[in-house]
Amino acid sequence: MFQTFDAPTSPDQGPPRLAQLRKTLKDYSLDGLLVPRADAWQGEYVAPCDERLAWLTGFTGSAGFCAVLAESAGVFIDGRYRVQVKEQVADVFTPVPWPEVGLADWLLEQAPKGAVIGFDPWLHTIKEIAALRDKLNGQLTLQPTENKIDLIWSDRPNRPHAPVTAHPIELSGQSSVEKRETLAKGLRGAGHNAAVLTLPDSICWLLNIRGNDIPRIPITQAYAILHADASVDLFIDPGKTDDLGPDPSIRQHPFDAFLSVLDGLNGPVRADTSSAPVIVEQTLGDKMVAGDDPCVMPKARKNPTELEGMRAAHRRDAVAMVEFLAWLDAQTPSELTEIDVVTALEGFRAGTNALRDISFETISGSGPNAAIVHYRVSHDTNRRLRSGELLLVDSGGQYIDGTTDITRTIALGDVGNEERICFTRVLQGMIAISRIRFPKGVAGAHIDTLARAPLWMAGQDYDHGTGHGVGSYLSVHEGPARISRVSNLPLQPGMILSNEPGYYREGAFGIRIENLIVVQEAPTLAGGDNRAMYDFETLTHVPIDRSLIVPEMLSHEERQWINSYHAICAEQLEGKLSDRASAWLSQAVHPV
Amino acid sequence: MFQTFDAPTSPDQGPPRLAQLRKTLKDYSLDGLLVPRADAWQGEYVAPCDERLAWLTGFTGSAGFCAVLAESAGVFIDGRYRVQVKEQVADVFTPVPWPEVGLADWLLEQAPKGAVIGFDPWLHTIKEIAALRDKLNGQLTLQPTENKIDLIWSDRPNRPHAPVTAHPIELSGQSSVEKRETLAKGLRGAGHNAAVLTLPDSICWLLNIRGNDIPRIPITQAYAILHADASVDLFIDPGKTDDLGPDPSIRQHPFDAFLSVLDGLNGPVRADTSSAPVIVEQTLGDKMVAGDDPCVMPKARKNPTELEGMRAAHRRDAVAMVEFLAWLDAQTPSELTEIDVVTALEGFRAGTNALRDISFETISGSGPNAAIVHYRVSHDTNRRLRSGELLLVDSGGQYIDGTTDITRTIALGDVGNEERICFTRVLQGMIAISRIRFPKGVAGAHIDTLARAPLWMAGQDYDHGTGHGVGSYLSVHEGPARISRVSNLPLQPGMILSNEPGYYREGAFGIRIENLIVVQEAPTLAGGDNRAMYDFETLTHVPIDRSLIVPEMLSHEERQWINSYHAICAEQLEGKLSDRASAWLSQAVHPV
Repeated sequence: MFQTFDAPTSPDQGPPRLAQLRKTLKDYSLDGLLVPRADAWQGEYVAPCDERLAWLTGFTGSAGFCAVLAESAGVFIDGRYRVQVKEQVADVFTPVPWPEVGLADWLLEQAPKGAVIGFDPWLHTIKEIAALRDKLNGQLTLQPTENKIDLIWSDRPNRPHAPVTAHPIELSGQSSVEKRETLAKGLRGAGHNAAVLTLPDSICWLLNIRGNDIPRIPITQAYAILHADASVDLFIDPGKTDDLGPDPSIRQHPFDAFLSVLDGLNGPVRADTSSAPVIVEQTLGDKMVAGDDPCVMPKARKNPTELEGMRAAHRRDAVAMVEFLAWLDAQTPSELTEIDVVTALEGFRAGTNALRDISFETISGSGPNAAIVHYRVSHDTNRRLRSGELLLVDSGGQYIDGTTDITRTIALGDVGNEERICFTRVLQGMIAISRIRFPKGVAGAHIDTLARAPLWMAGQDYDHGTGHGVGSYLSVHEGPARISRVSNLPLQPGMILSNEPGYYREGAFGIRIENLIVVQEAPTLAGGDNRAMYDFETLTHVPIDRSLIVPEMLSHEERQWINSYHAICAEQLEGKLSDRASAWLSQAVHPV
Repeated sequence: MFQTFDAPTSPDQGPPRLAQLRKTLKDYSLDGLLVPRADAWQGEYVAPCDERLAWLTGFTGSAGFCAVLAESAGVFIDGRYRVQVKEQVADVFTPVPWPEVGLADWLLEQAPKGAVIGFDPWLHTIKEIAALRDKLNGQLTLQPTENKIDLIWSDRPNRPHAPVTAHPIELSGQSSVEKRETLAKGLRGAGHNAAVLTLPDSICWLLNIRGNDIPRIPITQAYAILHADASVDLFIDPGKTDDLGPDPSIRQHPFDAFLSVLDGLNGPVRADTSSAPVIVEQTLGDKMVAGDDPCVMPKARKNPTELEGMRAAHRRDAVAMVEFLAWLDAQTPSELTEIDVVTALEGFRAGTNALRDISFETISGSGPNAAIVHYRVSHDTNRRLRSGELLLVDSGGQYIDGTTDITRTIALGDVGNEERICFTRVLQGMIAISRIRFPKGVAGAHIDTLARAPLWMAGQDYDHGTGHGVGSYLSVHEGPARISRVSNLPLQPGMILSNEPGYYREGAFGIRIENLIVVQEAPTLAGGDNRAMYDFETLTHVPIDRSLIVPEMLSHEERQWINSYHAICAEQLEGKLSDRASAWLSQAVHPV
């Protein structure tokens, strides 16, 4: 079992640690400290030894940071964590709604004039600190320091040290040499001698390797330098790569050697200011030029082999999901808790005998808990299911050939009409994205509205993006493309995105429906313009709860879509299910 | 009659003028020259004395520029003018598709290494030249010079000198003193001593004045400086303001005094780099800080008085439009030309006895001419109408209380089914924008897709934005808000926008339907979220050709919208029409 249900922190731990930290800051003549959730790899998950924000404050969300001053300590959290933070942190910490309140504004208001605020230059990106400096406008000083939490965290866990494995060409679809040569050509074209790579999923993609240092995402903690001659310096703890064969074009160094090698490079050296830590800029100085991590775009555009792997992983995952839904349908809701749901679902995924990990902590929220957008059940919050309520289950698997992410909202018995009307609106938005055909150049910001319009017309909306990129046996949340109001990057063939509109009524119920989709070239239509157009292939093939659909609300085209979708689900899963699941499926895909 | 139909230029004029210009450039040791369409006020219309691009090249479009080198001369035009440019310029000029080909790339390819390219620092914005310099990367030199076209343009017309009139509080809704005090407070808050205003519509809005220097837009050619004490320096040719009463808070100077007053200012002085000319930056030097023209946002958010004026202007304009449509319906198409249509329509507008000007050159395109997005009929292109074709008429009026802009596409007799299907898709997009309700924070880029989705699903699209801002007895194309893929400025109550999707099949037919709409606060809905939401009020009340609608393609809601729209048109126009128009209207608004 991958998932655990213990409350990972307690509010009680915070006050003494905060007091100790303040004393330390005083010893070092610092007036404050930034404590981010991020580690040196800027990922969504961090190793236990990097859980500094949780250790200090008790807050365990996947995004946020704390600003500690002598008299106040703000925990900055976005819309997803407004409720959670109140339960997790003691009142020596002040939850600050972010980004409505910016860090600079808060510091300028709270800190004494001329205060010196420390930060660990490994944990903050160049862009982040530059933007903060700009806003502070010289009124406060930001000072890079060694990590002050690590000084006082006495029982800090060890850094992970899991072995690295090769990700073979049968799964990656392109050799590392070919990838490196393509990118090196780009570096030469831009006149750059090298590019610094600090994102582990970029390095794993480029070198066709996978690791096991962090839960939920098969990456290894490393940094790398790609040179314009296509060779690579890899900075990784000795011993982790023993299982890989020798490769003379990859020079391995201990992670600690990173700064000295960086220092010895000839410029210009490219670094991605939105992901590289400040220490890179400090070390490179004038040799540094800002530019995109060159792996990010080709990694996002999955090749045919990666897409075949994703399809296979989704077929496998759909079997587990349908077995789970059939099992759930046969239970009495009141005899189950949210944790039982998570345990059963992980069991069905494990039953595929191919599950490497879950791709994130399963969200299993019933009744009002489903309205907490990033709810994670623990023994403390665990709730018994009730007939008449909605159950929201958002989950995914890491398989060696692909990463899945699916949300289904399930009616437990007969639910109210209001829930069904809202569910149908969410479904209409989800269908609108699934069906849309759009010209080349269109970005996620432009189609996001299609998912929301049915809710908007009813005065409703949801406070999260409609979709995120997904990696290929990598991060379930992968950049750079998104379906979101702020994503102006044109969508390109091969990009995999989630399509997950929702609706949340606080204290009452929550709805989300999520499939993964791939951008592809759309077939030409008779009477259509002579212009490049794209549409989406749907990867996920799991029925959507028909009992929650109000058929009269659907247009002819929407009804056609759902019926055709269900027919494809049945086709994809034929012959792969248990008798119970097979029987359940045949009624679940009845036309509406 | 405001509109004229003479071809304003001839391709023959270009070659000798280009030869003469090249000789002049050689005399001044310049390897090239930029000749923009813009004047020193960066507006859409320019005075005859500023028609340098047309004088040199023959190209008369409302956007574009020429780059002259010794061996080549590129005329850069966007998608709207690809066809027109070919007819207007001689082949010594090369049409360059812009922005697909950038000016910097073209210059780097065409000009010899180290070439010196001249430009008039009054005619280019700071941002434009900075971006160009950045892209040229030191490989070519951009050199400000006095205007080289003016040196050789022997019969150049005089600068306009029309009197300025007051725009009274009954129309402006807010006194100039109040506007200036609000903006001055903003300047003080930002720590700026003054703001340079170079956009005539900003100055007209701020000082509650209107002018008559330029066709189609009631502005006066002037620059101004707004000080943090709310006083103003106004730079305007002596004599133009004789009709205004004295105002001690406005210090008047001849236009020529601008640079010396600018030079004497204490910094920091704000200038809007996207509209202020390079000469402002040259003169202010380090005193300049980049910042938005402070008039732009409050000017865009029309106040209740301005909105009442716009409603009155639209009722008046709708009478003229309906009289026109009724007249047209009674004619035999083959007895009319496109010019007859323009003349008749302007006649009906003039018949309101309130028309100050048309708000732009009426587009009257029949058959294949309607597929030319910014078609302007001349005696050379004038085409006889034919039964069975579509007629596209895009027009508007300048009234003292408001500016109108409306497009209707009219069936001449029975038209083909394909035209009707495409028309209905365009109408569906137009209705989607008209009906949408959206949360605060949403921008034009987010709703633009709603207007296109019905076309996209059929593999179709249109190559222009969906909507532009509209001024209040000012420019019919007013910034900063737009409904366009690139407009990320959140829409705010009081902003007036056009809603004008279209579809164009080259060589065959063109369709556009356009209403003006205003952003307003949407009423709360039962069951809706507790969040601020906006929707649109429609200002335009002129029937949409029912014979072009395929009713079976419309959803229940779309059909409801069109029938309710037509009912409101009838209600708004009741008692205001001639017998003929009244009879025509009653059949035009029959439910579909």
